[in-house]
Amino acid sequence: MRATVIHGERDIRFEEVPDPQLSTGGDAIVRVVAACVCGSDLWPYRGVTPTSSAHRIGHEFVGIVESVGSEVSRIKPGDFVIAPFYDCDMTCINCRNGFSSSCLNGGWWGQKDRMGGFADGGQGEWVRVPHADGTLVATPGQPSPELIPSLLTLADVMCTGHHAAVSAGVRPGATVVVVGDGAVGLSAVLAASRLGAARVVAMSRHADRQAIAREFGATDIVEERGDAGIARVKEMFDGIGPDCVLECVGTEESMDQALRSARPGGQLGFVGVPNGGPELPVRTLFNTNVGVRGGVAPVRNYIEELLPEVLSGAIDPGRVFDLELPMEQVAEAYAAMDERRATKVLLRP
Amino acid sequence: MRATVIHGERDIRFEEVPDPQLSTGGDAIVRVVAACVCGSDLWPYRGVTPTSSAHRIGHEFVGIVESVGSEVSRIKPGDFVIAPFYDCDMTCINCRNGFSSSCLNGGWWGQKDRMGGFADGGQGEWVRVPHADGTLVATPGQPSPELIPSLLTLADVMCTGHHAAVSAGVRPGATVVVVGDGAVGLSAVLAASRLGAARVVAMSRHADRQAIAREFGATDIVEERGDAGIARVKEMFDGIGPDCVLECVGTEESMDQALRSARPGGQLGFVGVPNGGPELPVRTLFNTNVGVRGGVAPVRNYIEELLPEVLSGAIDPGRVFDLELPMEQVAEAYAAMDERRATKVLLRP
Repeated sequence: MRATVIHGERDIRFEEVPDPQLSTGGDAIVRVVAACVCGSDLWPYRGVTPTSSAHRIGHEFVGIVESVGSEVSRIKPGDFVIAPFYDCDMTCINCRNGFSSSCLNGGWWGQKDRMGGFADGGQGEWVRVPHADGTLVATPGQPSPELIPSLLTLADVMCTGHHAAVSAGVRPGATVVVVGDGAVGLSAVLAASRLGAARVVAMSRHADRQAIAREFGATDIVEERGDAGIARVKEMFDGIGPDCVLECVGTEESMDQALRSARPGGQLGFVGVPNGGPELPVRTLFNTNVGVRGGVAPVRNYIEELLPEVLSGAIDPGRVFDLELPMEQVAEAYAAMDERRATKVLLRP
Repeated sequence: MRATVIHGERDIRFEEVPDPQLSTGGDAIVRVVAACVCGSDLWPYRGVTPTSSAHRIGHEFVGIVESVGSEVSRIKPGDFVIAPFYDCDMTCINCRNGFSSSCLNGGWWGQKDRMGGFADGGQGEWVRVPHADGTLVATPGQPSPELIPSLLTLADVMCTGHHAAVSAGVRPGATVVVVGDGAVGLSAVLAASRLGAARVVAMSRHADRQAIAREFGATDIVEERGDAGIARVKEMFDGIGPDCVLECVGTEESMDQALRSARPGGQLGFVGVPNGGPELPVRTLFNTNVGVRGGVAPVRNYIEELLPEVLSGAIDPGRVFDLELPMEQVAEAYAAMDERRATKVLLRP
């Protein structure tokens, strides 16, 4: 079969790799129907995270189950399934606590697995999925094709945006500012709106992303950044800032802006993968009582909550995709996102 | 009148100062009945926080209202009142949001006030209280003398311990570890227990403090610190750690221990004044989804909730006092706390 392999900085290849084989009893082989490129895939692509040896990449996919191991009981061949961006057993204490991204037995696509082998990446024709009964969520029946993009967002970005909103404690009536207008930031706007926020401010300078943010429920757009952006949102909310700030970027600048935007006693939900960002200023947090919470989104724990709304069309998070390519053009997908020609690229084998 | 003045490192004097005068219309003069020394008073005492010029000190007191300004309507001469460790108007947006410690018009005892003068400290015979209607909470009638110590804890330590528990999201059934066995840590044990925690672990090596922690509801005592302490509490809670950790010290070591003790997705409530502590490790927080929340406790917002339980005897936080001195021996009170001969010292004029 063919799958995406990163060989080094800006060296993404769709190439022949060994076919996956069932090996643990609890695993499944999934034929990928759609996959995509994540903003976090750009860190190794850009060389910010070095690639010491070539390995598989990609962690967002949906597909059809082809075969399952002898111990798999919940998932069946023929199921249309959503895979979170990690595998998890959903039986360990962390999974049961709602934090399956800290599964005691789970792992990450494209990384060395616990058996000493290497897990498949998600940007390939087939994927071997460990802990299939825990990891995969099957849809009731086969979804119609136009739902595929939105279902794919449940693998990561929509659930990650939701995690930002949950971590920031967004409640009905809350005032919310979202820092970041990438696919996760836009999903966070949708999540905050869905949770009943009274006002949702999207910080964005791009007309196309502003338009999606509005569709997703943003009530206000702020184009300023840094000190000017902070001053603007403080002014909008009683001079003190919003209740909740959703940080969806992960840079030093975005985290600083987010922290300084929240009102005293407000809450920051952060899901941008910290990349060279600073440590959090404990004295500032102490003086302002701004809380900070977030991290690797436990998307598996959220899929079942959000899936019915995707299936019913109540939410349409698939709107974040603005480019679709055949998977063999995956290198172009990375380039388009790297050069900001696309917000998020959907790939089909 | 006489009041406590800090002149420099280990130079605490109880000396003659000008009598307070009503000056703003909204203020009150309170005759202090009891005051105390705070762990945070020890930072300037030890010279960790430099004292550039002599000033009044102390921020916890209860007393009897002597006179009020012309605009004061809620507080009356003769009222027995509790003063939080700051003044606040309780009408601004931050006060209404529950964060009166960020009052837009408030200030701090013993610091330069907004009128250009210097606010009284709390360790004196009399105190001029700005924003008397907002700042002060009157008890219904005159409390019996044995309640004075517990009422005094509502000025700071009991409400601060409560803030740690609230910030850590302690709920019925929660598992809780309290780092710090000073007066605030002990109060945090009581607060967590009061909020319905299923298990409360006090980390303490002192038999006398362990005994009070037990009285306050601690179900377990852990004497180990650092890595050994972390291993111990992880082992106690499914190998992953407790739901909630209450950080009540403020040093680099205590914050590190607290952060690494919480389970994935757990929550740290911190109220120890950060003193040379490190910035918070954002990558660790991201990887574990441990949330952090806390700061300067909005004690004024909590007093009304806790006061009835003090008056009824349901809680007896005054047990944290283990030494009582006449206020003119205030220098000895500081020395006793500095040398750990006392946990917390109560002073009477």
